Amino acid sequence: MTAGRDSAADKAKPASSQPSPTTLSNSAQQPSAPGEITAQSTQPSSQKPLKIAVFASGSGSNFQALVEAIREQAIPATVSLLVCDKPAARVVQRAEALGVPAFLFDPKAYASREAYEEEIVGRLHEEGVELIVLAGYMRLITATLVEPYYGRMINIHPALLPAFPGVRAIRQALEYGVKLAGVTVHFVDGGMDSGPIIAQQAIEVRDDDTEDTLAERVHAVEHELLPRTVRWIAEGRVTLNDRKVTIRPGD
Amino acid sequence: MTAGRDSAADKAKPASSQPSPTTLSNSAQQPSAPGEITAQSTQPSSQKPLKIAVFASGSGSNFQALVEAIREQAIPATVSLLVCDKPAARVVQRAEALGVPAFLFDPKAYASREAYEEEIVGRLHEEGVELIVLAGYMRLITATLVEPYYGRMINIHPALLPAFPGVRAIRQALEYGVKLAGVTVHFVDGGMDSGPIIAQQAIEVRDDDTEDTLAERVHAVEHELLPRTVRWIAEGRVTLNDRKVTIRPGD
Repeated sequence: MTAGRDSAADKAKPASSQPSPTTLSNSAQQPSAPGEITAQSTQPSSQKPLKIAVFASGSGSNFQALVEAIREQAIPATVSLLVCDKPAARVVQRAEALGVPAFLFDPKAYASREAYEEEIVGRLHEEGVELIVLAGYMRLITATLVEPYYGRMINIHPALLPAFPGVRAIRQALEYGVKLAGVTVHFVDGGMDSGPIIAQQAIEVRDDDTEDTLAERVHAVEHELLPRTVRWIAEGRVTLNDRKVTIRPGD
Repeated sequence: MTAGRDSAADKAKPASSQPSPTTLSNSAQQPSAPGEITAQSTQPSSQKPLKIAVFASGSGSNFQALVEAIREQAIPATVSLLVCDKPAARVVQRAEALGVPAFLFDPKAYASREAYEEEIVGRLHEEGVELIVLAGYMRLITATLVEPYYGRMINIHPALLPAFPGVRAIRQALEYGVKLAGVTVHFVDGGMDSGPIIAQQAIEVRDDDTEDTLAERVHAVEHELLPRTVRWIAEGRVTLNDRKVTIRPGD
């Protein structure tokens, strides 16, 4: 399917029906396999901006970088909602300053994870959100969100996945002693940072790097890679076929 | 310790005494920690060539690339022995053509893995081998080899470790759908491709890559990265401190 342009959420392919990675060498040789939906006839020039909701829990530097890049670089998209589980997080102030509406919620006020996710899904439908971007959203996500948005929900992770999934990825990489760290943008599936990869960029680790100095360069790459990936999706150039993501060259 | 220049094998730190990776953020802040031995006073200009044994089981393209690079690029090293468990492998013909002595053995002729490894260690001592390079050696290695040569045995692996250890790494990476593949050179410890990393280089995966086309670019990087790493070691520029490997800049 083409990310962000298959607007019927209830037709989206649920994560649970994804084949296991070990079966994918076949599908990679069958570009017309049933699992693939392309929308390459989409004309970017006639598109309305892609409506995006960003989910974040903390500082929100990726949120701000994305909003600014969209506005400054003529990316055919708009961040129409911030979803945040921490009303005191700095990202909330950034949203206010940037004029982006925020949906704030307190997870403890709900009976279950599914309960607040159902409310979020309702709000996303109201807003007509076509793409979810997880950018430092520190909560586990259930099928309530993953299934209706599979192929239309992406995450940015500060490591070269599948290396160092989960929390504290930069520290994990330094402790392991890798010579290349990096950033990955991927579709979200039911696992921990395990979905199909859209884009990766490597970053050299220096002998004197600390977690802070490496994080600074990782964040600089994130602020560039996430808007670039969103542009590809907004321009209808990203196709997902099982685990294989292809990017059609730009015009 | 400095790889390849601590010639007393029985003083080498056994792999079993290595601290676990999770303790290493401390040691990275303590460059004078007890686990570190540097030999930065070594004068490359006065060195005898570093004596290397290459272990290989197959085609031997890395073996040949290393021998030729050492001869053509004035790397202060010499490949003085090929160790091979497959007398019919193409690497044996390459060794003959390049004039490198070979130690061939049939694992089935020995009672245990330890038995043939003891014979190999004896031969390495006779030859005065200072560095072991595993280059497509398809056998598991036990403490019989790892402990006397810890810090003086390296392996080249066709992936960005810790992603995709073990066999068929290139196929694993394609099936996962990574956008960056790569090559890692690392010290060998008791685990599967788990030792301290010396060098890594990333390779972009193309949408139309097959296992063969990607392998071709991976091998081209290997043939360049392995000699470069051997040069660093031969010039006494590589220091191993727990899991952290530092490379002193060249003259």
